[in-house]
Amino acid sequence: MKKIAVLTSGGDAPGMNAVIRAITLTALKNDVEVLGVIRGYNGLMKGDFVDLTADAVADIITKGGTMLYSARSPEFKTEEGMAKAIATCKENGIEGIAVIGGDGSFRGARDLSVRGIPTVGVTGTIDNDIGCCDYTVGYDTALNTIVSVVDRIRDTTQSHDRCFVIEAMGRGAGYLALNSGIACGATAILIPEVDFDVEKDVIDKIKFEQSRGRRHFIIMTSEAPEVKAKIGSVEELAKKINEETGVESRATVLGHLQRGGSPTLRDRVIGTRMGNYAAHLLIEGKGNRVVAIKDDNLFDLDIIDALNTKKQLDADLYRVAVETAV
Amino acid sequence: MKKIAVLTSGGDAPGMNAVIRAITLTALKNDVEVLGVIRGYNGLMKGDFVDLTADAVADIITKGGTMLYSARSPEFKTEEGMAKAIATCKENGIEGIAVIGGDGSFRGARDLSVRGIPTVGVTGTIDNDIGCCDYTVGYDTALNTIVSVVDRIRDTTQSHDRCFVIEAMGRGAGYLALNSGIACGATAILIPEVDFDVEKDVIDKIKFEQSRGRRHFIIMTSEAPEVKAKIGSVEELAKKINEETGVESRATVLGHLQRGGSPTLRDRVIGTRMGNYAAHLLIEGKGNRVVAIKDDNLFDLDIIDALNTKKQLDADLYRVAVETAV
Amino acid sequence: MKKIAVLTSGGDAPGMNAVIRAITLTALKNDVEVLGVIRGYNGLMKGDFVDLTADAVADIITKGGTMLYSARSPEFKTEEGMAKAIATCKENGIEGIAVIGGDGSFRGARDLSVRGIPTVGVTGTIDNDIGCCDYTVGYDTALNTIVSVVDRIRDTTQSHDRCFVIEAMGRGAGYLALNSGIACGATAILIPEVDFDVEKDVIDKIKFEQSRGRRHFIIMTSEAPEVKAKIGSVEELAKKINEETGVESRATVLGHLQRGGSPTLRDRVIGTRMGNYAAHLLIEGKGNRVVAIKDDNLFDLDIIDALNTKKQLDADLYRVAVETAV
Amino acid sequence: MKKIAVLTSGGDAPGMNAVIRAITLTALKNDVEVLGVIRGYNGLMKGDFVDLTADAVADIITKGGTMLYSARSPEFKTEEGMAKAIATCKENGIEGIAVIGGDGSFRGARDLSVRGIPTVGVTGTIDNDIGCCDYTVGYDTALNTIVSVVDRIRDTTQSHDRCFVIEAMGRGAGYLALNSGIACGATAILIPEVDFDVEKDVIDKIKFEQSRGRRHFIIMTSEAPEVKAKIGSVEELAKKINEETGVESRATVLGHLQRGGSPTLRDRVIGTRMGNYAAHLLIEGKGNRVVAIKDDNLFDLDIIDALNTKKQLDADLYRVAVETAV
Repeated sequence: MKKIAVLTSGGDAPGMNAVIRAITLTALKNDVEVLGVIRGYNGLMKGDFVDLTADAVADIITKGGTMLYSARSPEFKTEEGMAKAIATCKENGIEGIAVIGGDGSFRGARDLSVRGIPTVGVTGTIDNDIGCCDYTVGYDTALNTIVSVVDRIRDTTQSHDRCFVIEAMGRGAGYLALNSGIACGATAILIPEVDFDVEKDVIDKIKFEQSRGRRHFIIMTSEAPEVKAKIGSVEELAKKINEETGVESRATVLGHLQRGGSPTLRDRVIGTRMGNYAAHLLIEGKGNRVVAIKDDNLFDLDIIDALNTKKQLDADLYRVAVETAV
Repeated sequence: MKKIAVLTSGGDAPGMNAVIRAITLTALKNDVEVLGVIRGYNGLMKGDFVDLTADAVADIITKGGTMLYSARSPEFKTEEGMAKAIATCKENGIEGIAVIGGDGSFRGARDLSVRGIPTVGVTGTIDNDIGCCDYTVGYDTALNTIVSVVDRIRDTTQSHDRCFVIEAMGRGAGYLALNSGIACGATAILIPEVDFDVEKDVIDKIKFEQSRGRRHFIIMTSEAPEVKAKIGSVEELAKKINEETGVESRATVLGHLQRGGSPTLRDRVIGTRMGNYAAHLLIEGKGNRVVAIKDDNLFDLDIIDALNTKKQLDADLYRVAVETAV
Repeated sequence: MKKIAVLTSGGDAPGMNAVIRAITLTALKNDVEVLGVIRGYNGLMKGDFVDLTADAVADIITKGGTMLYSARSPEFKTEEGMAKAIATCKENGIEGIAVIGGDGSFRGARDLSVRGIPTVGVTGTIDNDIGCCDYTVGYDTALNTIVSVVDRIRDTTQSHDRCFVIEAMGRGAGYLALNSGIACGATAILIPEVDFDVEKDVIDKIKFEQSRGRRHFIIMTSEAPEVKAKIGSVEELAKKINEETGVESRATVLGHLQRGGSPTLRDRVIGTRMGNYAAHLLIEGKGNRVVAIKDDNLFDLDIIDALNTKKQLDADLYRVAVETAV
Repeated sequence: MKKIAVLTSGGDAPGMNAVIRAITLTALKNDVEVLGVIRGYNGLMKGDFVDLTADAVADIITKGGTMLYSARSPEFKTEEGMAKAIATCKENGIEGIAVIGGDGSFRGARDLSVRGIPTVGVTGTIDNDIGCCDYTVGYDTALNTIVSVVDRIRDTTQSHDRCFVIEAMGRGAGYLALNSGIACGATAILIPEVDFDVEKDVIDKIKFEQSRGRRHFIIMTSEAPEVKAKIGSVEELAKKINEETGVESRATVLGHLQRGGSPTLRDRVIGTRMGNYAAHLLIEGKGNRVVAIKDDNLFDLDIIDALNTKKQLDADLYRVAVETAV
């Protein structure tokens, strides 16, 4: 192995740069050159590369987003696009690739591996919705961003005796909403993995807390369609709460601010560990693997297995959330 | 003067606690007792008070929102409500009142002054939309919150070559959008005080920057109705940009997170100065005044004059914004 | 079980309030009353208590430090002090106690358990130096504080082509320095658990990076005596680096700022989980236990066993640090 | 005027990049090219330049430090060094220079102007110690950094009933200590501009607050030699407080973390305004000027006058600090 390439694909996530950095530095230490691919699989097809030197990556560990940019690439999913990418790899002496992204990105990694370019996936997405993996790079930063923003909203909630219904990201998964809901002391947390009843779990809960003297409330919801199907929009839920409990209620969709920001320690450290692990896999010539983490231990598994694993939300964590809600 | 009261009214703003603290400590130093009124003019009518001691207020300088809560009070605007408030003041020996809030709150302050309770207003609102005053407590924190959140959004904007249209608060005024737009390096800033043309000032500007090689853009807009009348919603503007420039565009309404958070240094220091000034006015028996700041100098003016002053946006600042936009 | 008490002991740590909150809310949900003990074992001897209601604890989850205060208590270690504490518990109907703190605090918990008051320990310390436990409440916040501060120092380091030698806390353990060193991209990390040679691991490493074109460097050190024995003070190490590499070098001892701050998501969530777990132990009448976490799973163990467990630093993490240093 | 150069000199300050950005964009808008000089006057002598394009500077507004690096340059103070710099300017077609930095940097700016290269100074330093100017770029960020760090220390101070003596930067000036002391609710603030007596202003004040029931205290001191001459080190003052008041006391020197970090809104906006102003001066062919701000209005003055102006601390602000201290 003389030369590898790194690319980021799918939604950007804080800590992706830590992964890029760790792959690069680990490879260089083992006398393997590293090319950075610009704008994901698009750049791979076009041959849009930058040399990744030690100095080029040294300080990116502090930065959100991805220094290599990311982009959708429908063309890459075609046979023609794939052929272009393989050709570009051959021309440039690329013998292995690391792909940082989510599920969608790993399908491309598998296709490249199958066609003779050992490719390794590293899980980077704020949603933490990858089945094989306890933790995805970007998740901790997104959680802390949500907490810091909801802490601000809480000031108004408290000063005005209000209820705020807040929608967190997470695509189809409730991880962001559940964990940030606990951390923000939400009165109720509405996520797709757990069946809930608005009347009982939101309205009655607020009324009970009102009877204990409480006057301000935060309701955390996931953006998942299953949740919206039950509550309507967050504005509608706020309106309902207002009508049924008498508490002046407002709604906020946190939106894209959840994706960015300088990565937290955890995303930097786990990103560094995963990047180091991925580089070693490639140096050993292994492809078609995903780097994952369980119980704080890194391991790798076949991409197909990774894609087929379903993720289970920690039911006990939801119990804790309910028992400590006020 | 033996005893004064303090209340917060209208929307909460970071730094209100610094004002409460400074009024209390300054009064105590001059052997004047201080009552905190709970929930604005409502609390004044009901006689809902807390004793404000040095220790009670000492550490609130770090906290967003208002420790005295705020609430709307339609009843206070009636003759009956006003009479109740005056009666409560007499019963409790309250000889002067400080009211922290915006325009709406000052009308009540005037009415109390006219009826024999010297009342002083301190300008606290994130919108900085009070005519007599360069600066209102809460403004700097809101600006920095917007900047910190837009810096996060920028990571995604940059990583994905996107345009984000971002709506800042400010009610009818463009101060928040203009200043945060400069600080975030917005390509265009749309505010009610300055006439703009979407085609020329947004679309053509983006196209010009595209010709200079730029691929990501932030457009900052004010929530003012005049702006919305021209752009539709931020979602509509994002759609238009997408169609006319080819840049993938998204919209975000920042919402209530702009109101809260631990106050910045500036809101703490100016809040402390204003509170100190207001306390001295009351100690000297002066009422019907608003504490304001111009060119970093504190002064006080008649409430009526304060309410009648119209505020002018700094046209030169807009020129600087345009000249440094990219 | 009708009534339990909670106290914090030893150094304060962010997230202690989340533990207090979760114990309280879980107990209340199970119809058990909760008393907060003011100023640790001192308050227990003196009977200095506050009622912990749902509303009293609801919003403390956002706050650093401990709402119950902490203090040293030499008297409690005497037979007389212990007798006083037991007597106060009897008088106040306290049937179980939760103690949040580090090793030192758990000795008291054991002594109380032995004397008939079931007492449970929850690990709260920023140092993460408790043998039985992967993670202690406060650790993640301290790490992120260090990172945010070093990111600031890095701006100067980079702007002036300097080297900064930075001392992190951690008492005898290198966890804070190792993890923050990775996250800050330190060129070298000096901790007591790993043998190092200043000449080889610091000076030669910097010279190697200089040969790769790098001009600014961060060296992270632990405050542990074993480290200081080798490097002298951080100032001395900075001086040595200056002399031997020609890089203008400075030293900073981060100090007490590492202990405080609003807790991160992780300290809030794990604190909530641990508090909930501890409350359930007490409700079931179990004492003499410590609540610990391994591989993200909570469990409890005998206090004696907890005190006797030695902690092993993750050697593989150090390897990753070295391989990704630049 | 066809081409200008920009350099940063002296200690780095957050917001310097905003100035560089504004100079560049304003110049480009007026068809003037801009060269960035690497490492201050050193780079000017050596001809170490980078082209500053719109895209190169667009996103630096969010970053601390200086993208152009800074360095000491004893050689530049010699006739030979100056001649080299002039020669390099001629060779590269540089017709004007903007220098961002403090007093020391402006002497060089004057010397260049005198020798025929119109040079304009922009005040950038965290210390706010430049006589002609109310405000220097970097000052607001440094203040907010101090506040955020002291807020963390306060958690421990409060949890343990302690006193912390904290040393802020500021070189010979007390601006940083005075303003951050007010914002942090310091019990006493020790600065060189105001005569103080440790016994009366610190010890007696703490004792008085103890008599009002207060148990934790923050003492803010400036690093100025005049202050140290009276208190010894902060450690010595902490020891004295401990002995005389019985409060467990600790000391912290905040150090270099005060210099860095992403600039606040204010440093970005004032930096942008100053940069825009400086560019216009150069475009009009004016040199030997310093851009300054008074009462929020920009103006320019002769460098000699700027260097000769003595700065007066706002005595009224100190009075407010004393009246609101607890």
